[in-house]
Amino acid sequence: MEDVPLHDPTRRTFASDNYAGVLPEVLAAIADANGGHQIAYGEDVYTARLGEVVRHEFGDRAEVFPVFNGTGANVTALTALVPRWGAIVATGSAHIHTDEAGAPERVSGLKLLVVPEEEGKLTPAAAETEAWGWGDEHRPQPLAVSITQSTELGTVYTPDEVRAIADFAHERGMAVHMDGARIWNAAAALDLPFAAFTRDAGVDVLSLGGTKNGLLGAEAIVVLDPDRVDGLVFLRKMNMQLASKMRFASAQLLALFEDGLGVRTAQHSNAMAARLRAGLEGIEGVGFSHPTQANAVFAELDLDAADRVRERYRFYDWDRAKRQVRWMCAFDTTEADVDDFVATVRGALAQ
Amino acid sequence: MEDVPLHDPTRRTFASDNYAGVLPEVLAAIADANGGHQIAYGEDVYTARLGEVVRHEFGDRAEVFPVFNGTGANVTALTALVPRWGAIVATGSAHIHTDEAGAPERVSGLKLLVVPEEEGKLTPAAAETEAWGWGDEHRPQPLAVSITQSTELGTVYTPDEVRAIADFAHERGMAVHMDGARIWNAAAALDLPFAAFTRDAGVDVLSLGGTKNGLLGAEAIVVLDPDRVDGLVFLRKMNMQLASKMRFASAQLLALFEDGLGVRTAQHSNAMAARLRAGLEGIEGVGFSHPTQANAVFAELDLDAADRVRERYRFYDWDRAKRQVRWMCAFDTTEADVDDFVATVRGALAQ
Amino acid sequence: MEDVPLHDPTRRTFASDNYAGVLPEVLAAIADANGGHQIAYGEDVYTARLGEVVRHEFGDRAEVFPVFNGTGANVTALTALVPRWGAIVATGSAHIHTDEAGAPERVSGLKLLVVPEEEGKLTPAAAETEAWGWGDEHRPQPLAVSITQSTELGTVYTPDEVRAIADFAHERGMAVHMDGARIWNAAAALDLPFAAFTRDAGVDVLSLGGTKNGLLGAEAIVVLDPDRVDGLVFLRKMNMQLASKMRFASAQLLALFEDGLGVRTAQHSNAMAARLRAGLEGIEGVGFSHPTQANAVFAELDLDAADRVRERYRFYDWDRAKRQVRWMCAFDTTEADVDDFVATVRGALAQ
Amino acid sequence: MEDVPLHDPTRRTFASDNYAGVLPEVLAAIADANGGHQIAYGEDVYTARLGEVVRHEFGDRAEVFPVFNGTGANVTALTALVPRWGAIVATGSAHIHTDEAGAPERVSGLKLLVVPEEEGKLTPAAAETEAWGWGDEHRPQPLAVSITQSTELGTVYTPDEVRAIADFAHERGMAVHMDGARIWNAAAALDLPFAAFTRDAGVDVLSLGGTKNGLLGAEAIVVLDPDRVDGLVFLRKMNMQLASKMRFASAQLLALFEDGLGVRTAQHSNAMAARLRAGLEGIEGVGFSHPTQANAVFAELDLDAADRVRERYRFYDWDRAKRQVRWMCAFDTTEADVDDFVATVRGALAQ
Repeated sequence: MEDVPLHDPTRRTFASDNYAGVLPEVLAAIADANGGHQIAYGEDVYTARLGEVVRHEFGDRAEVFPVFNGTGANVTALTALVPRWGAIVATGSAHIHTDEAGAPERVSGLKLLVVPEEEGKLTPAAAETEAWGWGDEHRPQPLAVSITQSTELGTVYTPDEVRAIADFAHERGMAVHMDGARIWNAAAALDLPFAAFTRDAGVDVLSLGGTKNGLLGAEAIVVLDPDRVDGLVFLRKMNMQLASKMRFASAQLLALFEDGLGVRTAQHSNAMAARLRAGLEGIEGVGFSHPTQANAVFAELDLDAADRVRERYRFYDWDRAKRQVRWMCAFDTTEADVDDFVATVRGALAQ
Repeated sequence: MEDVPLHDPTRRTFASDNYAGVLPEVLAAIADANGGHQIAYGEDVYTARLGEVVRHEFGDRAEVFPVFNGTGANVTALTALVPRWGAIVATGSAHIHTDEAGAPERVSGLKLLVVPEEEGKLTPAAAETEAWGWGDEHRPQPLAVSITQSTELGTVYTPDEVRAIADFAHERGMAVHMDGARIWNAAAALDLPFAAFTRDAGVDVLSLGGTKNGLLGAEAIVVLDPDRVDGLVFLRKMNMQLASKMRFASAQLLALFEDGLGVRTAQHSNAMAARLRAGLEGIEGVGFSHPTQANAVFAELDLDAADRVRERYRFYDWDRAKRQVRWMCAFDTTEADVDDFVATVRGALAQ
Repeated sequence: MEDVPLHDPTRRTFASDNYAGVLPEVLAAIADANGGHQIAYGEDVYTARLGEVVRHEFGDRAEVFPVFNGTGANVTALTALVPRWGAIVATGSAHIHTDEAGAPERVSGLKLLVVPEEEGKLTPAAAETEAWGWGDEHRPQPLAVSITQSTELGTVYTPDEVRAIADFAHERGMAVHMDGARIWNAAAALDLPFAAFTRDAGVDVLSLGGTKNGLLGAEAIVVLDPDRVDGLVFLRKMNMQLASKMRFASAQLLALFEDGLGVRTAQHSNAMAARLRAGLEGIEGVGFSHPTQANAVFAELDLDAADRVRERYRFYDWDRAKRQVRWMCAFDTTEADVDDFVATVRGALAQ
Repeated sequence: MEDVPLHDPTRRTFASDNYAGVLPEVLAAIADANGGHQIAYGEDVYTARLGEVVRHEFGDRAEVFPVFNGTGANVTALTALVPRWGAIVATGSAHIHTDEAGAPERVSGLKLLVVPEEEGKLTPAAAETEAWGWGDEHRPQPLAVSITQSTELGTVYTPDEVRAIADFAHERGMAVHMDGARIWNAAAALDLPFAAFTRDAGVDVLSLGGTKNGLLGAEAIVVLDPDRVDGLVFLRKMNMQLASKMRFASAQLLALFEDGLGVRTAQHSNAMAARLRAGLEGIEGVGFSHPTQANAVFAELDLDAADRVRERYRFYDWDRAKRQVRWMCAFDTTEADVDDFVATVRGALAQ
């Protein structure tokens, strides 16, 4: 590398929690896992230890399969849950539908059956619009429901809401998948252990996020009901999600579970989003599209003003037609960042 | 993590270069790339810089697409090279055929047409046994050749050998892919710049390895002839190989190119394999299946003796029916490791 | 076979045009094509002749590829129109979405982007809700629009409506597919040559139906703009849609074009649907969901009454929640059938 | 159609049994099944009757699923036999490997593991070269064996040979598929009921041919051990192999079972091949590559002479490098055809 750093480590944005880097504790965990030889492809001691931790968190039957990224976790988990003729019920804002480039369809031939959402959440009533037609060979067979926790719109399912969906699904022979790309933010928001709103609420398989909460790059499929899945060990490899030096993926994930690190960082990013929302709520010309329950603020404002804010802080339009933008907080967002951002918005709207 | 380390950082094996950890320079490069925000999914400055370095190494037209692992690189590269009806000519020992769990078939529907090898290498004459039948809709259409450098059997193609295959392929309208999971070992063995045995020898797309040569986990697709590929930016995403925090993958790959680090470490692991081979050659009861040109030694010996060696050093049988084992050296293999291993083999055979 | 026939050749239903058998002219055409040897897989004289007829109907650049069924035609046509990263914009009532068991997703990995419909028809405004995001690797790339003519809801696009969609699509680099499973009914309804509402209106590839209009079983992909497709000859085979004794498929399709047979039979089934609609319109308790422009009548009535009608005539509920049923007329529906059916409905409602 | 027929019904070739047309009894069966309405997609009385006949022939547990063609039968049957991670052991001359354009790989992601053959037949010893590695996630999992009866090289497995393969497979947890594209020729050659060399010999699923033995176009998947398959009803639809007017496919298949028609026609084509072989054996310059046990003769002769024969009778080279040609007899091949062909060969070689 160069003597001069390639980037400015003091510059932050409100674009995405993926823009942030790696928690220092995670870098340290990687370094601790280094040195000597460890069996490749998951027979290492860090992955074994991760298994123990996951069983502690999610129950004795839980199984964990580290993978590379969220799309890999979601597609592989869903593939393991349904036979070749299975279709997946999900909302129109689900990441698997909007942001995975059709990977569920392309990699596994999975049909998505899209249903309406309420503040980013799927409901049994919405699921019912597509959950029918079993046995009819002409109709894609709805055999799983997928929900996202926290949702793509920054809201959080309560355990009861998850339970209602799971009951609906299980009564109909459908499996339940949770995309937990931001599950740490949900845990922090709910102030509940993972098991309370996953296993105990009826979730069968979880995509356990990590990268958006301060890892370099590691996610995992957590199987909560092993009776619902088949062939994961093969599917992970076939789906090109099997890391050779898996010890480092597992070490990263372990770090989040260690001493409550992952929940603590998620609490921080949630708190920054709450501070951002509070700061913005007094400003005329700023509306809000959804409750701010995790680390995202969905705001509506004049697009020209938004573009002026963007000169200083990068972020994404969510729906330009609705003047809707998304502002995300990360583990490294500071109070000063938030306050300056609020001031910048105020200034942009005042012009 | 624990106060006590989970593993012994002084224990090494001869099982796989994937058992080794991460080069200290690579950990440092990751740390340097940390801090602040960088645009996700490849718009960061480290990936931009990697593009410059790759163009410097492989020519102005070269394009680089970091991915997670070798299977992801191979399958995505091959998919970009051939239309849906393309089949791939490769040897029976090719990693894409033997060790990727059918990912080329499953993810991309790619038929592999398997041809005989000579010391792990594909030849034009061997390719010809399957390179025919274009236009016949019943026959899978052979539209690319894939070779591995260094090969799965520890041998290295000369530039002329690569060129002969590329000429054969291009004359028939076929594209040329090189699986370079251990390309650093090949570069070290040939003592040539990458371009000399890739671009200049007619390779169209390269899977550029990294993980087996001391990275935490990063590989890249390097396009040498952009006219031969299509849609890589989409295919990488659809194939679930797009890292969100790509700056860290790119920083790892950059580290190997910096100050010749990657070639130096590969020279070392090759030298350790040569030392191992030399040490073993005098031992009665040890035969050799292939030339030792990179970092692998393929030996033949009594299986009971092999199992006694394994009590001290883990390694893999290659073909038990042939009493064939594979011993791999890595960037961290020491001369003392090799000498002790040779002594262990000698002792095991003496029993 | 038995001496006694297995079924009653005088019993007809209002369930589906697929319930009807084969036109006598088509059986005769099959018999005429029999005898002697003809080259298999499409090099026969009947397929050559079909090519001539198709060029006569659809223009000199048209190419025809007989296939087995409508799903095969649709999936293969769409696959030839878009690269691996292409997604398809279609309505929620499109057969490819509702009735092909996820074959587009499973066989070709094609993502469908579903948009609202108006009386079964797609509009440019509706297409626009999903036709965006080109170049964004996270979003499935909308690269084709698929419309059905006549629609699954018994309505017919005018040439201007098709043209508006095609202009919308082509301006955005998207291709246009028409599912013509019932295109003969559309031609009869519009009283226009095929070219007027396909090629001349901007359709790039057509699934040309036949089975629903009196064939034993034959459909064809008709390419109207060969510059828009690639590899169809291979894709048809790979998609398991290549008939060995293709002369008989081609002979069937030829029969529909001969002396206007196919349009005449479609005029008849349309006329029967119109008679059915007219007969029902006076009956209290029967509502209508859509205009009756082809051979389907979508009616709403009391479900108990519907079930009483079903004791005499089989048909399908369309949407039980909306008390909606579908009544289809076929080439062999008679005026007496219609009149008796109307009387049966009247009687059932009177109970 | 025209008044003048498009082709000469008296011209026959030795190219393929697919070049022949339709048996008159089969055309009659189609006509008998015509008229009136029958439920589409397989709920018709002809398909029900076919089920009875198949149970009579193959045992009470047998299930039948008519499909369009042999590739569709093979790919769908194999897909139903193995999970997504299953690979198929087959010979290098298997139709699924050489002549289905990669459909098993493309449609279902099935990896084929190719083993050597003996006179076109797979043996347990050959299967063993690829039947290993279960549980190793890197290796495609060999979970089924596929054999062809009669083989692509015109030979026929004895019941004992089939049983040996089935025992080998079942002992290892693998399923057994038989590609019976020419199973009628095998039944005729063995002079045994189907069950003797399928169900009783351990075959789990059969692709039951029909088209090559005088049908217009119909094949069927016959499940012999329902415990070995899953989801066939959905997979047939998803694989685009579900005929709407299935009564006509079933009626065709029924005709072959009626009064021994199918075995009788196969006996005839086998006898014609035997006559051809006998006639050729005395001719100097003609060698034979394989035993002639069904309806194919594989001969070796001077290629110029072969081309002179081809001026009169179309046929295919099998392997030009080996001067190998394939001559096929069909249900309509006459003794006079054979005798004239032999004379033509004799004349061509005498020049």
